Amino acid sequence: MSLIVMKFGGSSVGTPERMQLVAKRIIERQQEGNQIIVVVSAMGDTTDDLIDQSKLLNSNPPAREMDMLLSVGEQISVSLLAMTINQLGHSAMSFTGWQAGMITEQEHGKAKLKKINPSRVMAALESGAVAIVAGFQGMSETGEITTLGRGGSDTTAVAIAAEVGADVCEIYTDVDGIYSTDPRVVHRARKLDYISYDEMLELAHLGAAVLHPRAVEYAKHNNVKLVVRSSFTSNEGTVVREEASMEQGVVVSGIAFDKNVARVSILGVEDIPGVLATVFGSLADNEIDVDIIVQSGVQDGKADFSFTISRNDVDAAMAVIEQMREKVSYSAATHDDNLVKVSIVGAGMVSNPGVAAKMFATISAVGISIKMVSTSEIKCSCVIEPDKLKEVVQALHTAYGLDAAEEVFVGGPKDRR
Amino acid sequence: MSLIVMKFGGSSVGTPERMQLVAKRIIERQQEGNQIIVVVSAMGDTTDDLIDQSKLLNSNPPAREMDMLLSVGEQISVSLLAMTINQLGHSAMSFTGWQAGMITEQEHGKAKLKKINPSRVMAALESGAVAIVAGFQGMSETGEITTLGRGGSDTTAVAIAAEVGADVCEIYTDVDGIYSTDPRVVHRARKLDYISYDEMLELAHLGAAVLHPRAVEYAKHNNVKLVVRSSFTSNEGTVVREEASMEQGVVVSGIAFDKNVARVSILGVEDIPGVLATVFGSLADNEIDVDIIVQSGVQDGKADFSFTISRNDVDAAMAVIEQMREKVSYSAATHDDNLVKVSIVGAGMVSNPGVAAKMFATISAVGISIKMVSTSEIKCSCVIEPDKLKEVVQALHTAYGLDAAEEVFVGGPKDRR
Repeated sequence: MSLIVMKFGGSSVGTPERMQLVAKRIIERQQEGNQIIVVVSAMGDTTDDLIDQSKLLNSNPPAREMDMLLSVGEQISVSLLAMTINQLGHSAMSFTGWQAGMITEQEHGKAKLKKINPSRVMAALESGAVAIVAGFQGMSETGEITTLGRGGSDTTAVAIAAEVGADVCEIYTDVDGIYSTDPRVVHRARKLDYISYDEMLELAHLGAAVLHPRAVEYAKHNNVKLVVRSSFTSNEGTVVREEASMEQGVVVSGIAFDKNVARVSILGVEDIPGVLATVFGSLADNEIDVDIIVQSGVQDGKADFSFTISRNDVDAAMAVIEQMREKVSYSAATHDDNLVKVSIVGAGMVSNPGVAAKMFATISAVGISIKMVSTSEIKCSCVIEPDKLKEVVQALHTAYGLDAAEEVFVGGPKDRR
Repeated sequence: MSLIVMKFGGSSVGTPERMQLVAKRIIERQQEGNQIIVVVSAMGDTTDDLIDQSKLLNSNPPAREMDMLLSVGEQISVSLLAMTINQLGHSAMSFTGWQAGMITEQEHGKAKLKKINPSRVMAALESGAVAIVAGFQGMSETGEITTLGRGGSDTTAVAIAAEVGADVCEIYTDVDGIYSTDPRVVHRARKLDYISYDEMLELAHLGAAVLHPRAVEYAKHNNVKLVVRSSFTSNEGTVVREEASMEQGVVVSGIAFDKNVARVSILGVEDIPGVLATVFGSLADNEIDVDIIVQSGVQDGKADFSFTISRNDVDAAMAVIEQMREKVSYSAATHDDNLVKVSIVGAGMVSNPGVAAKMFATISAVGISIKMVSTSEIKCSCVIEPDKLKEVVQALHTAYGLDAAEEVFVGGPKDRR
């Protein structure tokens, strides 16, 4: 008998019909001889509706009260799902975050899990019931209701799977797995059978919004086997696990891209110790996430450097840099708001020289110049002009042998909670 | 400094505008130098909407899961009310039933309060905040979410008021107090300044749906001073307390009526010991509430008796009586489904002979015959034909000197949770 965690996003339970499909899927999985813990997000638009209601009454509501309010979304979906399974003649018990023993820090709206006491969940399983846990929420040690922030339901599922030693944590969504790139851009994008945690992390960070990075990190750290699969088909999905590419000869697993990239350059910076710490410390203090950083060689005691940020952080970043004039001597600061980033990701890259060179050559062949480059052991990113992004992604997909034999069907919107 | 519990029903917080009015009313009361605990019901149609959603998925959902689902209604209203008070520049903290320490039995859907641990509520008051408690809900000792059933929010308010020793428990509703009778029937109905718990209990049981009987009993037992007043006007309201009619010379405080009355008669019953216990025990086992019971004199070892029940219990009651043939010998059973009951209520009746006689005479003068009579120390009820109910109520109201100098304005629908 296996112990399986099944996580369903909000759009998977957004209508009574979908709720019934999900209930049947859960019962099937149990009938195969498994013990089942289900984690569910709030249904469809519930969360947005609650936020709209709050906005009518308070433009900047206290985070504690927002958590009180928003946590009802999952409480509704878990109780309704339990009722649906019950109607189909099977036993199910729903649990709020606090009932499921999800103890968190008390940072409302973005609480981190501290420990889990799944005794009530396990008792439900022992009694033969499906245990249905509200995702995205927990309770602080002082009894305050908390929410885990974006991607929280993925994290709930992985954390419970780790705590109870589940054999697998299945993430059900409205795509049927992890693709080699966005199928809306490259129609021959290929569904991956396997991917490593690190590759998945790079893809998640790079904008492939199927699994939240925090959940992937948690899974990697606790060695939880993840499967990303469709709520609506019985296709096999993509397995995420420690062992990397099982597919022989695969060097690059996927191509990711980010259309929201701006580059800021600070020129003629006086090269004294600690200057980088000052610059990036100030940006961090203002909650500006910096991605790629490139410093040119020092000449006459002066250096140029550039970094990329999200486009909507440009104004804030330029203001921070202006304020730094007292502490840091530099000649000018410029920005380019209209860039994109394309990345190749693959655990096989580390032992295959020439992978990056092939990327540069492919991009050049499309007639695009590369503005910045950043590499890690399993990824290589290039910042480029936005004009021919689609052609670049297509060309890279083909160059690394990722094109599928057939074009794929492209589904609806993705679950994002 | 006084400690005040303010209870608001669902229609009092049903729109953002009403929510803001309620928030202002709460702040005013606090600014007068009081510590404030607020108890709120679910907003407007929330509960009905949730029930509708559940019906789509399960025609007979488990009570435990219904409690999980329905308890979100109050969680939404308390968090939104806390946000609204916060937006107006004041401090407020919301609490679910379990956070407020409302410990109940585990009878889902109709749980009884067992004990209250209001430490978190008191800590909020000490910090200067308004404490806002979700009505209608609690938690069993095993950590299950429970609901208190009909009238539950009134009970929550009174129980907290008793536990913390509040100076007064104010029940805000959309009428501005307790009336001598239904103002929709008698336009000169008079708002009462004072009423005793017992009178209020009789009126509550008799269909004046402003305060739930359970809450009144709880208040009487714990000597909690209640005030029933309007959410939307600053009128004084009606004080409910142990000391009876403060108004000199008032014998009858109010006229109540119930339009949903059926009479069942069992004729020629063999008069052996225990026969009444058998009959009414069987009805109770089938959850049929019996109101008035009248037995005629015994003749030839046979008796007739009649009792009143709610109209919708008639079929069930007749079936129970049919099944009793094995145990009880009787000649026939009949029923009359179309009757009404009118009652006069007043703590002054006990020491004033002739009050009931005046009632009978007044009803006769309208030309209506009386089918059944029942009296207690503070009430006298008559079951009559329904045709001239309004005239009867009006005539009694005038006969007992209750008519106000002016006609009253009749408000909207009443809160019922």
